[in-house]
Amino acid sequence: MRAIVLEDDAVYQESRPDPVPAPGEVMVRVLQAGVCETDLQLIKGYMGFRGVLGHEFVGVAESGPLQGRRVVGEINCACQSCATCKAGLQSHCPNRSVLGILNHDGAFADRIAVPQVNLHAVPDSISTDVAVFTEPVAAAYQIPAQIPISRSDRIVVLGDGRLGNLCAQVLAGLSDHVTVVGKHPEKLALLQARGIATALVRDAIGERLADIVVECTGSDSGLPAALRLVRPRGTIVLKTTVAGTQTLPWAPFVIDEVTLVGSRCGPFDRALDGLARGHVDVLPLISDRFDLSHGLAALQRAQVRPVLKVLVDVARQ
Amino acid sequence: MRAIVLEDDAVYQESRPDPVPAPGEVMVRVLQAGVCETDLQLIKGYMGFRGVLGHEFVGVAESGPLQGRRVVGEINCACQSCATCKAGLQSHCPNRSVLGILNHDGAFADRIAVPQVNLHAVPDSISTDVAVFTEPVAAAYQIPAQIPISRSDRIVVLGDGRLGNLCAQVLAGLSDHVTVVGKHPEKLALLQARGIATALVRDAIGERLADIVVECTGSDSGLPAALRLVRPRGTIVLKTTVAGTQTLPWAPFVIDEVTLVGSRCGPFDRALDGLARGHVDVLPLISDRFDLSHGLAALQRAQVRPVLKVLVDVARQ
Repeated sequence: MRAIVLEDDAVYQESRPDPVPAPGEVMVRVLQAGVCETDLQLIKGYMGFRGVLGHEFVGVAESGPLQGRRVVGEINCACQSCATCKAGLQSHCPNRSVLGILNHDGAFADRIAVPQVNLHAVPDSISTDVAVFTEPVAAAYQIPAQIPISRSDRIVVLGDGRLGNLCAQVLAGLSDHVTVVGKHPEKLALLQARGIATALVRDAIGERLADIVVECTGSDSGLPAALRLVRPRGTIVLKTTVAGTQTLPWAPFVIDEVTLVGSRCGPFDRALDGLARGHVDVLPLISDRFDLSHGLAALQRAQVRPVLKVLVDVARQ
Repeated sequence: MRAIVLEDDAVYQESRPDPVPAPGEVMVRVLQAGVCETDLQLIKGYMGFRGVLGHEFVGVAESGPLQGRRVVGEINCACQSCATCKAGLQSHCPNRSVLGILNHDGAFADRIAVPQVNLHAVPDSISTDVAVFTEPVAAAYQIPAQIPISRSDRIVVLGDGRLGNLCAQVLAGLSDHVTVVGKHPEKLALLQARGIATALVRDAIGERLADIVVECTGSDSGLPAALRLVRPRGTIVLKTTVAGTQTLPWAPFVIDEVTLVGSRCGPFDRALDGLARGHVDVLPLISDRFDLSHGLAALQRAQVRPVLKVLVDVARQ
């Protein structure tokens, strides 16, 4: 099969044998995949991953109870037997592999093997172009799963990229006071079209006024900016995963009693429901699309700012 | 009056006029004060404070509704009129002064002026030696005021000093699984005598097993250690206020969805209740005591490890 493979800090287009599903895994024929910021970080050496890239995908199950159905798949492959799994925290299983990120081949390929328990059927009302956003939309829905959000909460989303856009759309359904702060007028315009307030980073924004700041910049300047915006006893939700370290003064966390919440993968069922109901509009985010045979070009395109979502078309249903 | 004054990074014993209470303030004749880690940080330049040091105290109100009563005082002096105060967050008032810490003279003196609303009467059942711990005991009770604690929570308190000891005692009333990790066998022995489990830092302690880690080390090694101990989706409560910066890898906060909660001053009423009921035993923490006329010696003594609490006796009731 065709595959986009990361090896020794370089990415190759390869032809390789189909994956062999492990016990409990199902073979999925990939229809479409999306390029994520994490893919770009992996190429830069984050996590030291080697293998087939890609973890946002829609495919058709070729076996199991969902055989023949369109499916999306949660990315954390848990052992289901350790204490963490038994406590219901499968996405944090210390023995886990992660599709396209950690010890498990990903979805920039004609086929991917996925644990049966990770699969969710895609309702017919959701197109494949929309369903390929399920994983990042689920990550946005993880925020209200972790912290309570009220209609009066003043929320600032830092970052107007893919994840910032999706988080803002999800949160705008829960609060009447969401503002996205970004650097790119054309990306902010997409949010304005959804009725969401925006501001350019260079414009003054009230300091220490936000009840909640969601940090989606993908940059190590995001957390210091979040600390300037959040009110005393407010909450910073940290979404950016970047390699390397942050150097910060620590006293403000204690003096202002700020809460910092790390937030990662989220509930696929909630994401599919939100997409089906149109609570999140993802199609305007598609900046470009490439056939899998041109997957390297897709990755290169995704590294050019100001791109939003680049899709990899693998097959037709 | 006698006073211990910080000026230009040096501490002096001085004779100076009594303070002049501002509108809404009451004059308090100080009976006793306690030396806090924050006092030692202030002397090192933290906050750039100049003035009379000392913020843990018991005194006798010389005016107002509590005239003639023994009192303790909350340290944050709020404007009571800004949006933060009106939202009920007086301890975070952006216009606040803080007794002995920020723009307000403190309690290492014969008299201190304190806002009337900050004062709490000390029940007769609580001795002055015990009541002088109200402020740090309230800081310990702030933890259950911020996060839910259950009897089954596995809690690690990092640090066997003054604040670590008090936090551990408060939390041991709420959870059956509190362990204090410290460096000083003689300080850990005080906790063992209260039936609280302890471990030496050098001994292996299970990694990524704690539901809650309370960081009270007073050192910038505390937060990295807390990150090693906390489980995925666990909570780190940050109590240490140190000047300077921390350099940390940030991805673990997101990958493990760790919550970090900055925690500062707490409820005095809850602290007085806990002290009256004997839920927190503070007398064994008194390492030494000095008359105010030897206040400089008290501060020097408090900097010698392994000391716990050094008291400054100002007057008899």
